[in-house]
Amino acid sequence: MTDDTLAAVGEIAALGRIIPRLTPPDAAEVGAGDDAAVLAAPDGRVVITTDSMVDGPDFRLAWSSPFELGWKAAATNLADIAAMGAVPTALVVALMAPPSTPVALLEGVADGLAAACTALAPGCGVVGGDLASSPTLTIAVTAIGALEGRSPVLRSRARAGDVLAYAGVLGLAAGALRMLFSLAVDAAGAADAARASALRGTHADLLAEQLAPRPPIAAGVIAALAGATAMLDVSDGLLLDAGRIAKASGVVLDLSRGALEPDAAAVVAATGFAEDVAWDLVLAGGEDHGLLATFPSAADVPAGFRVVGRVLAGDATVLLGGKPPSTRTLGWDSFA
Amino acid sequence: MTDDTLAAVGEIAALGRIIPRLTPPDAAEVGAGDDAAVLAAPDGRVVITTDSMVDGPDFRLAWSSPFELGWKAAATNLADIAAMGAVPTALVVALMAPPSTPVALLEGVADGLAAACTALAPGCGVVGGDLASSPTLTIAVTAIGALEGRSPVLRSRARAGDVLAYAGVLGLAAGALRMLFSLAVDAAGAADAARASALRGTHADLLAEQLAPRPPIAAGVIAALAGATAMLDVSDGLLLDAGRIAKASGVVLDLSRGALEPDAAAVVAATGFAEDVAWDLVLAGGEDHGLLATFPSAADVPAGFRVVGRVLAGDATVLLGGKPPSTRTLGWDSFA
Repeated sequence: MTDDTLAAVGEIAALGRIIPRLTPPDAAEVGAGDDAAVLAAPDGRVVITTDSMVDGPDFRLAWSSPFELGWKAAATNLADIAAMGAVPTALVVALMAPPSTPVALLEGVADGLAAACTALAPGCGVVGGDLASSPTLTIAVTAIGALEGRSPVLRSRARAGDVLAYAGVLGLAAGALRMLFSLAVDAAGAADAARASALRGTHADLLAEQLAPRPPIAAGVIAALAGATAMLDVSDGLLLDAGRIAKASGVVLDLSRGALEPDAAAVVAATGFAEDVAWDLVLAGGEDHGLLATFPSAADVPAGFRVVGRVLAGDATVLLGGKPPSTRTLGWDSFA
Repeated sequence: MTDDTLAAVGEIAALGRIIPRLTPPDAAEVGAGDDAAVLAAPDGRVVITTDSMVDGPDFRLAWSSPFELGWKAAATNLADIAAMGAVPTALVVALMAPPSTPVALLEGVADGLAAACTALAPGCGVVGGDLASSPTLTIAVTAIGALEGRSPVLRSRARAGDVLAYAGVLGLAAGALRMLFSLAVDAAGAADAARASALRGTHADLLAEQLAPRPPIAAGVIAALAGATAMLDVSDGLLLDAGRIAKASGVVLDLSRGALEPDAAAVVAATGFAEDVAWDLVLAGGEDHGLLATFPSAADVPAGFRVVGRVLAGDATVLLGGKPPSTRTLGWDSFA
């Protein structure tokens, strides 16, 4: 670590330190360093998505390490590619940072981006990017994926009679965030690095669910090969995101309360929260980044997924145990 | 126009107003609204680049209309695709804005993005994006292009004996910025909308070069078809960007002072600046976004380009009339 800042080092020298830390993707035909990169798209299509992380609304430097910021920025975008049934092939990354930012911080972000690609989507890597000045530290990632000749798995093809399945555990990421907001703040309510560090000492695995998530990226292709009829990644809360499949497909999704009990129990065990709080986090917490998919029958549900409900005929509604859910929150809205 | 803000309207309703203003690209197989979009890549490759615009370092709302912000964000990314010899096929756009931002402002940005695609790269459009909260208004664009079976035109293939040519006029964008900084500020030096408006009354065409540039996007493919050996878009100043070709190709680029005299004269005519200031802007001003390319011979230089120099054997140097240039600035660095 050095304390050289972007202002002291300059854009070109900073890029000279950041770019070598990024492993180029296997699909790169022309990598970073020209006006644009060139990526292979062997089946004649690319899947593309973009998602950003902003200092303040999306993260706090007192809670997240630079490595974790890069990891999460990659992981959340990889999950959107996986949710189409595609293999992530490359990221492009726009880093925007105040001139006072240490270059070492951005080196840490780069290391996290590279490590998440290696761990979650081998062969994927950062193929290009942009480094620019901003008052607000921002990581804007665009992810590209390959369908390898398959049809994309959309939100709109769930059919009555399908089963609903999920890959991942619900509620832990939101539980971790709730613990950070209650225990890793100072007397004035501001994010506090020392208290976050203490919380890591007792709840490392839980905090990782929020700060450096490991979405089941490979499960996206597995679901597609198993015949998934619809799929998305649960980022804004189970009820809200299930509602997106229900609306796009014109069906009712009936969630099984029994199937979600292990999630609520896991949240209680990891956080010590009351059971009703845990259920709110499971149903509406957000940032789970697991994959919610529908399959023609229970026999089609592949390893890594578990049945969490069923698809009924009807009009764009989500039920819990056959009834309208009564949860106190309705999922994430950036501006709510 | 309404004064509804993002905070009042919420993310989902705001997207419902923004997305319909964006024309989907011809290449879209799956458009906005799922986890990711799917784009056609008929020749099995995509060209990809990203560039951002940030309130403060890159623009001021007192000087630029929302429409102009969207236009420029699209145009600068389209130029990077063109500089590879590719046809722009799609943009993905991450918009980050304070909760107090009027939705109408983002509608204006969307209109500018759509209009720039229609005008500069017909068939290209916005295929997806992200709307998120940030203290700093930011437009992060990723552009995708198609090579249509051609090889990409890199920076690294210029050869001694080639001629150097340029499509566009140099110095006007930087001249406009200099006028804004001297005449469209208040007594404290802050950007002033009323003074900018007055300056538009007398210098509309000049300000458009800075605020809503029209890079010669179609010239990128024309250059590739004509056999361009190297190409880039001049964004950080002629000397600095020419140096990038010189370095990547391991050659000397010798710029002709006579060939650049019309640019300097155009800057003097448009701004009233002294000739030595105009020359600095031509050589190092930045944000020109024209295409600088090398061709095997003068006979290969296609319509839309003019010869501005020659390529000599030697080591990664840029000369002006055979001598090292003495300019007072060295081009753009985001953190300098």
